[in-house]
Order: sequence, then C-alpha cells, then structure tokens
Amino acid sequence: MKSLDANEESTVAQAANGGLLDRRLFLKKGLVFGTFALASEHIPADELQRTAAMLTPGAPFTGYGQPSPFEQHLLRNVAANSAVAGNGSSMTPLEQLAGTLTPSGLHFERHHNGVPKIDPALHRLIIHGRVAKPLSFNLEQLKRYPMTSHICVIECGGNSFSGWHKEAMPGTPGSLHGLVSCSEWTGVPLSLLLQAAEPAADASWIIAEGADAAALNISIPRAKAMDDTLLALYQNGEPIRPENGYPMRLVLPGWEGVTQIKWLRRIEVVDQPVMSRNETAKYTELQPDGSARQFTFLMDVKSIITAPAGGYRLKEQGYYSLSGLAWSGRGRVARVDVSADGGKTWVEAELSAPVLSKAFTRFRIPWQWQGQPAILQSRATDEHGNVQPTRAHLIQERGQAGYFHYNAIISWQVESDGHIHHTYA
Amino acid sequence: MKSLDANEESTVAQAANGGLLDRRLFLKKGLVFGTFALASEHIPADELQRTAAMLTPGAPFTGYGQPSPFEQHLLRNVAANSAVAGNGSSMTPLEQLAGTLTPSGLHFERHHNGVPKIDPALHRLIIHGRVAKPLSFNLEQLKRYPMTSHICVIECGGNSFSGWHKEAMPGTPGSLHGLVSCSEWTGVPLSLLLQAAEPAADASWIIAEGADAAALNISIPRAKAMDDTLLALYQNGEPIRPENGYPMRLVLPGWEGVTQIKWLRRIEVVDQPVMSRNETAKYTELQPDGSARQFTFLMDVKSIITAPAGGYRLKEQGYYSLSGLAWSGRGRVARVDVSADGGKTWVEAELSAPVLSKAFTRFRIPWQWQGQPAILQSRATDEHGNVQPTRAHLIQERGQAGYFHYNAIISWQVESDGHIHHTYA
Repeated sequence: MKSLDANEESTVAQAANGGLLDRRLFLKKGLVFGTFALASEHIPADELQRTAAMLTPGAPFTGYGQPSPFEQHLLRNVAANSAVAGNGSSMTPLEQLAGTLTPSGLHFERHHNGVPKIDPALHRLIIHGRVAKPLSFNLEQLKRYPMTSHICVIECGGNSFSGWHKEAMPGTPGSLHGLVSCSEWTGVPLSLLLQAAEPAADASWIIAEGADAAALNISIPRAKAMDDTLLALYQNGEPIRPENGYPMRLVLPGWEGVTQIKWLRRIEVVDQPVMSRNETAKYTELQPDGSARQFTFLMDVKSIITAPAGGYRLKEQGYYSLSGLAWSGRGRVARVDVSADGGKTWVEAELSAPVLSKAFTRFRIPWQWQGQPAILQSRATDEHGNVQPTRAHLIQERGQAGYFHYNAIISWQVESDGHIHHTYA
Repeated sequence: MKSLDANEESTVAQAANGGLLDRRLFLKKGLVFGTFALASEHIPADELQRTAAMLTPGAPFTGYGQPSPFEQHLLRNVAANSAVAGNGSSMTPLEQLAGTLTPSGLHFERHHNGVPKIDPALHRLIIHGRVAKPLSFNLEQLKRYPMTSHICVIECGGNSFSGWHKEAMPGTPGSLHGLVSCSEWTGVPLSLLLQAAEPAADASWIIAEGADAAALNISIPRAKAMDDTLLALYQNGEPIRPENGYPMRLVLPGWEGVTQIKWLRRIEVVDQPVMSRNETAKYTELQPDGSARQFTFLMDVKSIITAPAGGYRLKEQGYYSLSGLAWSGRGRVARVDVSADGGKTWVEAELSAPVLSKAFTRFRIPWQWQGQPAILQSRATDEHGNVQPTRAHLIQERGQAGYFHYNAIISWQVESDGHIHHTYA
C-alpha cells in the first residue's frame, strides 16, 4: 500500500490545481486513502453483534419492488403551472443519482396537458398524408417488427434556462439542470414503418402528434425520421412509463426533447413543417444580429458536476470523489476537464466505461479540500471537437434574451464553511 | 422499397433453415415487410378523430413514477417456501421485457429469511480479521470514495435448475430461467477498502456476511475481492432496492449470485474458506466420476430465446422478429446462432450494440412461420470460444443429479396451432 508519498503528491497538486489530483491516483495506481482512510479505526463491540433487524425474519417477496422507505426524499422536483391542468415539468434529482442511467420513475417530465391514460389494446398508430399506403398499426402488430435499442439522453431544449438570467439562480444540479435523463429505449426503427407506407419521394417532413389532451405536434425532417429515430415501446427493459409516453413515443437520439412526441398516435407525411406553437412561438429565438434561430434540433455538448454541488455542504476537510455527467447530442464525449479554481487551471477527469454515443457519461476526479474557497467547474469536449463554452462566450454569441439550448460551463462556489451554491464565474 | 424479391429470398431461406432469414435483411439491407406489412391498410375515419383521452386533461405530475395500470400483470414470479418466512425466490419475467436492462422492480430475488429493513444512518460495514487496521465505515464515508459502474448480469447458480429434470418442465422463459437479471451497479471498488485495512499478505480469503436474519455468509477468494468486486450502493442510477441489498451489497461480475452478499455488514479477512452451508451442503455437486464440484464461482456462457417462447401462441402465419438474451460470466458474447429445426441447421443472429462484458446481450433474427411445427433454439459463444453445450453433452459431462450451473441449449416447441411450450431436443 502506498500512502505517505500520496501526501506529498497531493500537496503539490493542491498548490497547482486547487486540490484536484491526477484522476489515475485512486483507481489505476492503486493509491488509497492510507492515513486519510475515511473510516473509524475503532470497532465498538456492539457492531460485531447481530443487529436488531437480524433477529426476526424480514419482509416477504414482492411482485414489483419499490425504493426503500428511507429514500422517500428521492423524488422528481415538480414545477407545475397552476393555471393549466397538467402543464409544467418535473426534474430528475441528478445530485442523488450515481452511474449513468436514470431510473424510469425519476425520468424528467414535460407535459402540456397532463398524462393521458391509454388502453394499449385500443391504441393505434396511424401513418398517412403523402403516402401510397396509409397504414394503421396496433401494438400487437408493432411487436412483430424487428427492434433496436439505444441507451441515450433525452434533454429538454429548455433545460438550464435559468442560466440566461442575469443573476445565478440558487439551486441544486437537479432543480437547475434536471430536465435531462438517460434511459435504454427499445422499439421499432421508424424507418421500417415509414417505408411500409411508401411516402412520396419529395415529401421532406413528417408531423408527429401525441394522444394527450394538448394533441402536441411537431415537425421532423424526413432525413432524421429515416435515420436513427425509434418508435420506442420499452424504457429500461419494461413497457414505457405513462409519463414517458405509454404505450409508445418517438425517440430521436441527440435531439431536443420536444421533438420526441409521447403517446404517439399519428404521423403525417408532408412537404413542409406545420409551424406549430413549439416551433414558432417557442423554440425560436431572436439573436443579437437580428436573425432568428429556428429548428435548432441538436443538443450541444454539456456537462455538470453533480457531487459535491449546489445544496450540499462539505462537513470536513479531506478527500472527496468529485463526480458528474457529460453528454453530447452529436456523439460520444471525448474528454471532461475539471477546474477547482473557477477556470484558471484544468485537470482531465476519468471517464467511466462504456462511453456511449449521445448517452450520459460519468466523469470522476479526486479532490482534496483543505478548507479553501473554491469554484468547481466541468468542461466537456465531444468526439467531434465541440467544447462546452464559457457563459461569457455563449452570451456573446447568442445574447442574453434566450431561454433554450443553454449549455455553458456550470459553476459551483464552495465557501470556506463547506456550503456550496450556484454561481457565475 | 424492395418487397417482391423478399418473397423469393424468404422461400429459399425457409426451405433451408426452418424459416430463419438472414439477420441483415430487416435492418441493414433496408428490406421491409412490403406486401406483408403488419398493419391495416384501411384507416377508419374515427381513428383520425381525437380519442376520448384527448378531450380532458390527463393525470398530474408525480414525484416517483410507476408502471401503467394496464401493466399490472408485469410482476416477478414468486416461489416462496411456506415453511420458512422469507425463504425462496422470485423470478424476472424475461418474456415481457425488451432491451438488455432489467428494471430494478423486476430484478430477481433470492432470500433466505426475508428482506431486512435497514436504516442507512445506522448501518456500518466492518472489515476485520487478519488485517493491521480493523475499520468501520458508515455510508457517508463510503460515498466519499471513488466509485465505478458495471452494467452486468447477476445469475443465481441455481437458475434453470429444472433443466436437470428428466422431463421438460412446462413454463415460460421467466418461470423456468428468470433467476437472472442485468443492472448498472455503481459503488466503491472493494479493493480500495480492503487495502485501507492492510490485510495480512498471506490471508487468501474473505468471508462476507449480510445483515439479514439468515446472516448469510460466503467465502470469496482474495484475488476476486481485489479484482473487479464492487461494494455497490446504487442500482440503475438510484440507491439499491431493499430486496437487492439496501443500503449496500457485493457485486462480483460474472460470478454466481450467492457470492454477491446483500445487506453487506461484515468482511472478515481469513486464511481459508468458512465452509458455510452455501459452499458445502449447497453449491457442491457430486460428479459422475465420484469427485465433487465445489467453489464453482464462474457462470458459463448461456442464452435463451425470450420471444416467441414458452407460454406464447403465434396467432397467425407470417414474419416474427425472434429475440432473446445471451451472456457469459467469462466476458463478452461473440455470437449467437439460432435454429428453428431443433439444431439441424443454424443461422447467426444479430447482436444489438453495445455488447458489454458479462452483461445481457440482446440477439434478434427474422423468422417466417408458415404453420409448420418447429423447435426454436439459441446457442451462444463467448469471446473466449466457449460454446453453450447441448443438453446431452452437459448431462454426459456432469450427470443428471445436478441442481446448479445448468447452461445447456434451451428448446421451445412450436406446434402447428401456434402454441409454444418448453421441450428437450
């Protein structure tokens, strides 16, 4: 076991990089905490005795398991619009999760008029419009088609919207940036179903419509619909949850959430976009040069430190495993750099395998906190060389009147008393 | 769109391979169902109208989502021992799932005396025995250690035990072979914690003990404990479910489930195995040559067709997407071959990416059923060249008195009326 030279190395690293250590120290070099071991070296005699829970038989088997009663704080953060029934969103509590998958029960929600209760035996998917063969599919028919799976992120185009505000809004990773989740989606490639309907050669868009009370609709370029778009029936192995589109939804890997219509019931093949509310009044933004951004489908490279982060307090000095999530709608994450001094110096973080395209990638780096104020930041780079911008660069490019597609570097201020809060830096 | 030559190709394939088609026909060559489109070409006018569910707002947001009320049949298959409280197992309903992940609520269970209710604030992990520094960890300390994630299978060593019976037991994929599930497990490499305790150089085993009423214990070679063994705190992104070991369990990728102690509370570093019930009276098997198999930790290469399979009925002739799961405790699945004629001819199936080591790999192949009786089989090969054996070979090697580690090829008999049942072939 190495231990004492760790002390020397960490002191050097601390001076240089705000306490960030080489990412390989823990896992690859076998360096351990040694004299810093995060444990009690005294084992009270009663800890070797059987605990009370060991003296009587435990709970019986269950058909469908639930979280521990001690995890009742593990909930989505609901922000509902009191003026419209079922309008609003709920966010994934990113700071309470680990790994890369989002449990289905905690996948973020964005609804316009509530979650419809759909009997799968009665539900139909219709493909019509400029096609030679209008088709109506029931679920049993769809399940006979070949399926594929994608482990991928769905992120709302409005995620992190408060980043455009002049002042840094207080909050946690989940409450500020939790309109993003990652699941394994399984279903039928939409291309197979569209081809079966024989669309007109020059019809370049489809309009997808959901079976919710808002009849939410959106235009999707035919090229994407024929590429990797999935008619998803399953989420993380089981049928999609009601709030995620049961019994079927679209999944467009890497694209903004609003295009991925839930409770899908109708696809119309057309020549041009329908110009619905969510592609005109919303999701369209005036730029500093007077032009408008519209049909901004792709979600850019982004990352966030999820622990330690806003809302948490470091209770003592010492080692912490700093960890977060990175993703890009354009492909794989290539690297994540972390700073503990507000961007003056950067150290490359470890990426947890497997690194999958358009999916959450978990990054980690050891950090020694010695009571100093610090500003923690992460900066992701994707396989195509796209780098997450600073907030100043993003605002310079896009102005400050925005609401959508905020992907700037996120900063957490660590105070000397250990409290952590959201900041701009 | 190609369609008519599909007819020709499929007729040729049918003659040769019991109706199995080239796996690339659907997804890679862009061949679609064409005249066989599994859809109605007539769209009743009322299907274009708004459905009843679209006329009123849907359900509100929820903090923690649940499956659709139309999926109440989606349950683990419980086989509890009426003589001992909380003793028995429940199985994952493999035939109702798609993709590669098992939802946490449907992960198989094997308990010896029920599920303990553990307050994480009071729980301790103790490392003692032949160590220089006995240590006691609480959860807050453990969460400061660096973590890693493994997407991997846990399979009970007794999964598929009925395969050793002389007659093929009726059932579904889940009811016969559902003591296997696949999750993303995240936690602290056990090696980091063991190193911190400074184990004696010549201590070659550890004994792990759970905090359940059975105080289930098992011996693990030090080499595995120091390799990829994980002290898992998270399952599929969130804290481990109670029935899977909340607040912490061992995960030993590729090894039999009984070694992966749930509700872990104590690790004792020792010189030799403890010879507990589950490594002597159980998990030890007499072989035809009079020797005994013991400490048979590794789970061998295996696969199962999950759809269409036992308990299902093909309602009409035509195309089906035949699909199943393959895995190996020794590494990645390299290929899966499928037979529709009881093993006379084999066709290679498509493997769904990403193919991860020691994880479920989904395979798929198109199959045209024209009403003929058929025997569906799958045969997995792992990256080290290990091939799933026939039942005859397995029994020849290991005798018929076995209970554990059954990994022979699984056969589903399709009757001419479309009913499917388990068979030996």
